[in-house]
Amino acid sequence: MSGFVSLVGAGPGDPDLLTVKATRALAAADLVFYDALLSTDMLELAPHAQKFSVGKRCGKPAIRQETIHALLIRAAKRGKRVVRLKGGDPFVFGRGGEEALALAAAGVAFEVIPGISNSIAAPELAGIPVTHRGVSSAFVVVSAHEEATFRPVLQGLTPGSVTVVALMGLGTRARVASVLVEGGWPESTPAAVVLGAGSANAHTWRGTLSSLGDAAFPDSAAGLPGTLVAGNVVSLAAVIAPARRDSRPAVSAQGAS
Amino acid sequence: MSGFVSLVGAGPGDPDLLTVKATRALAAADLVFYDALLSTDMLELAPHAQKFSVGKRCGKPAIRQETIHALLIRAAKRGKRVVRLKGGDPFVFGRGGEEALALAAAGVAFEVIPGISNSIAAPELAGIPVTHRGVSSAFVVVSAHEEATFRPVLQGLTPGSVTVVALMGLGTRARVASVLVEGGWPESTPAAVVLGAGSANAHTWRGTLSSLGDAAFPDSAAGLPGTLVAGNVVSLAAVIAPARRDSRPAVSAQGAS
Repeated sequence: MSGFVSLVGAGPGDPDLLTVKATRALAAADLVFYDALLSTDMLELAPHAQKFSVGKRCGKPAIRQETIHALLIRAAKRGKRVVRLKGGDPFVFGRGGEEALALAAAGVAFEVIPGISNSIAAPELAGIPVTHRGVSSAFVVVSAHEEATFRPVLQGLTPGSVTVVALMGLGTRARVASVLVEGGWPESTPAAVVLGAGSANAHTWRGTLSSLGDAAFPDSAAGLPGTLVAGNVVSLAAVIAPARRDSRPAVSAQGAS
Repeated sequence: MSGFVSLVGAGPGDPDLLTVKATRALAAADLVFYDALLSTDMLELAPHAQKFSVGKRCGKPAIRQETIHALLIRAAKRGKRVVRLKGGDPFVFGRGGEEALALAAAGVAFEVIPGISNSIAAPELAGIPVTHRGVSSAFVVVSAHEEATFRPVLQGLTPGSVTVVALMGLGTRARVASVLVEGGWPESTPAAVVLGAGSANAHTWRGTLSSLGDAAFPDSAAGLPGTLVAGNVVSLAAVIAPARRDSRPAVSAQGAS
């Protein structure tokens, strides 16, 4: 029997935000290769699988992408059911496209299971709709890891025309704000940093582009992944965030069962 | 006992792409108010609920948004567990933000459960990664329903700097292509139309910006919602789409169980 690889989006981190399809793939898996940043709670959904941490953890050296490809292909060719579990969605800065191309080139059968992307869900879980009638009818998502990547995208945007979401931008938040302000965005544009969306330690900072660079966070949020949001939709969180119930598992269970 | 409203993202249409949290909310629901476009398969996940179709169906008059707000609030105030089931994600052109504000103003407890957004998943299910290392490190999502909305966003983009995803753009696809070409995008830029992503009748057209306006589709795709994609990432589908297994339920079960 030939093996099979499922490239699976794990969503923001809360196991309840996995798709039904993702939980089925995990339940049937012989091997799981997972991003080091993922919550280990999720791995309990793959009781029969051997589990291997791959991919980058903040500040530590990454396994080479080619090595991940080789591991996936070798396991599949041995007839295994393999899950490659990736934070967020596999095709949003997840290198899932590269893994799909490598599997295709090796003749390995695979599927892609979309996941809840932090680009939309991190703002959402903080009470910020990326689009809102009369406020924003578009959003742009950039990787803020390197200025050479995000600058050409952000500097061309008509100020205020879209909601800006920047992933991996915790360390570059001052530069993201500067590029937007240099491009004509008002310094008073509302901005937010959402840390650890969907986790128990989630924390949201809200301010403006002028204060984004100096945003400070509690110790409990140290090391959590951060998502930046800029645009007038951020203001809606002042009403939505305090009114909605926390969507963490313990509280959601209270509401839904 | 006071009621509770869950604003739930239903994803692209395949019930297996609901989140675990969404299925729990449906299982516990007393009432479900669902978008008319949604597959009725999903409603079977809410066996105890009364179900009401609300929201717009293509070409038919919509229930007024204020009426939906009133229905949600009245049901919650009667102590009901209410699910508002919306296609895709509630906060991506879903008017979920408006419903959240209305519930907050009425003092009704609610939660927001993110869903798989077609803006990312429709391309993905057609083999197109919205980001890909060395090809695109950003994407922009617009509603293409009205040119007055999408023109100011698209005309400011640096040609080729981002992947463009346009929702609700089937009827305006020629105008979307024109705005991009007028803005300096090469006519040869790869483009795609993904129809009914995640459904049994899903169909993908691939071509370029110059041929997008004249794109024709099979009869089986008539009436399906369409997502436009423009950018070099579309070319990757030529390798990824034929290699991956179809992610429809029947086939995924074969792969995953």
